[in-house]
Amino acid sequence: MAGEPKPHIRPLSNIVIVVAMETEALPIVNRFRLTHHPHSSFPERVPWVRYLGTYKDLSINLIWPGKDPATGVDSIGTIPSALVTYAAIQALQPDLIINAGTTGGFKAKGASIGDIFIISDCAFHDRRIPIPGFDLYGVGLRKAFDTPNLTKELNLKVGRLSTGDSLDMALQDESLIKANDATVIDMEGAAIAYVADLLKVPAIFVKAVTNIVDGDKPIVEEFLENLAAVADALDPAVEQVVKFINGKSVSEL
Amino acid sequence: MAGEPKPHIRPLSNIVIVVAMETEALPIVNRFRLTHHPHSSFPERVPWVRYLGTYKDLSINLIWPGKDPATGVDSIGTIPSALVTYAAIQALQPDLIINAGTTGGFKAKGASIGDIFIISDCAFHDRRIPIPGFDLYGVGLRKAFDTPNLTKELNLKVGRLSTGDSLDMALQDESLIKANDATVIDMEGAAIAYVADLLKVPAIFVKAVTNIVDGDKPIVEEFLENLAAVADALDPAVEQVVKFINGKSVSEL
Repeated sequence: MAGEPKPHIRPLSNIVIVVAMETEALPIVNRFRLTHHPHSSFPERVPWVRYLGTYKDLSINLIWPGKDPATGVDSIGTIPSALVTYAAIQALQPDLIINAGTTGGFKAKGASIGDIFIISDCAFHDRRIPIPGFDLYGVGLRKAFDTPNLTKELNLKVGRLSTGDSLDMALQDESLIKANDATVIDMEGAAIAYVADLLKVPAIFVKAVTNIVDGDKPIVEEFLENLAAVADALDPAVEQVVKFINGKSVSEL
Repeated sequence: MAGEPKPHIRPLSNIVIVVAMETEALPIVNRFRLTHHPHSSFPERVPWVRYLGTYKDLSINLIWPGKDPATGVDSIGTIPSALVTYAAIQALQPDLIINAGTTGGFKAKGASIGDIFIISDCAFHDRRIPIPGFDLYGVGLRKAFDTPNLTKELNLKVGRLSTGDSLDMALQDESLIKANDATVIDMEGAAIAYVADLLKVPAIFVKAVTNIVDGDKPIVEEFLENLAAVADALDPAVEQVVKFINGKSVSEL
């Protein structure tokens, strides 16, 4: 039959990269020579920032939630990431979401500083709702889009991600991170997975380890020390991933 | 000068009520004889539910995030509430958001089961980011729209709200709830306040106390026991508030 090839066998043409922090965004922006889009397709008042450009056959938009108007810091965490993912899917209709960012890793689960992980599953560790049904909803376990060829070809580590809105780790968080069997933790992934799943857009997660959660150094200190260096390690990994994706359909990932 | 009166002196005409649970939504839907809007102005795949109708001079939309497709339970918590508030503001351009719902209360701060509170300030108690600037961003303290005439006329209690994504209360949560000086706690308010503030729509919060957090009973048990009864107490309070609002401008609230 004539007509458009089905979406899963058509090469991907339009990807949205969602990033939480400016320090993570700018190396990727520079690497792909993306340009800032002042009329961002978002409502006038939101601080969300859109960069766009192309890489070979791919249209690339990078979105980050921008600086919080009240405090001037990056709008990290689940709520802004969920909102920009929703708004970007509505405005840009991407074939694929890539959430790229830094992450804490557990050395007991095989993570080292500078490792790049592709995420197999996302869940939350700070939504405790001890009522049957609601408990599972709170954990919000979701599979990332499966990319066996990508992880094999690029020889990347694969692990489970657990997401929470705090940078420290309370006792309850720690036990739920263990229950989620997480190798890496962040503050956005599971929220982005939730929105992508709601709107049925495939989502993959590229995470660079900035700090070792079960190591000797305090989490916050190590995070701040390594953030810039690891954000620089993130952008070549994102380029590798985008290069691999170019020309392929989702079913070939 | 001729032309439209300025927004702050023009009577309100279009309000959106955001509710997290079906048990909270249905008594309000019935009281205002709202009808379900099958083509909800939202994307096709989301479970978000829209009811609409009128009350005297007011157009009323009630929005709740619906049943989670994965687990079948109500989509409670900050992320779905932030998303529906964003989408409802974009689609419906309301003059005012009313977040109505049940809440846990502290008897030490003057809350009793069945009390109706109007919220003065919202903050989060489960976003701990111990880096200067990010710490304040995490707490996310925001004033609700100030309604001195409404609270006086309807003789309602006024208190601060603290929001978190868990129904239980971890030690860290408890100390941050105290730091937020909260009389009542919920799982959505501060997220709705965040989105309303981002898009500059005034938001007010009407909260009915379902359980006493610093009482003898376990939180979850008391919450489930009282949910239906208190949801029934919520809808007359919402009607009182809407009746008061009708014919008034925001600056008269």
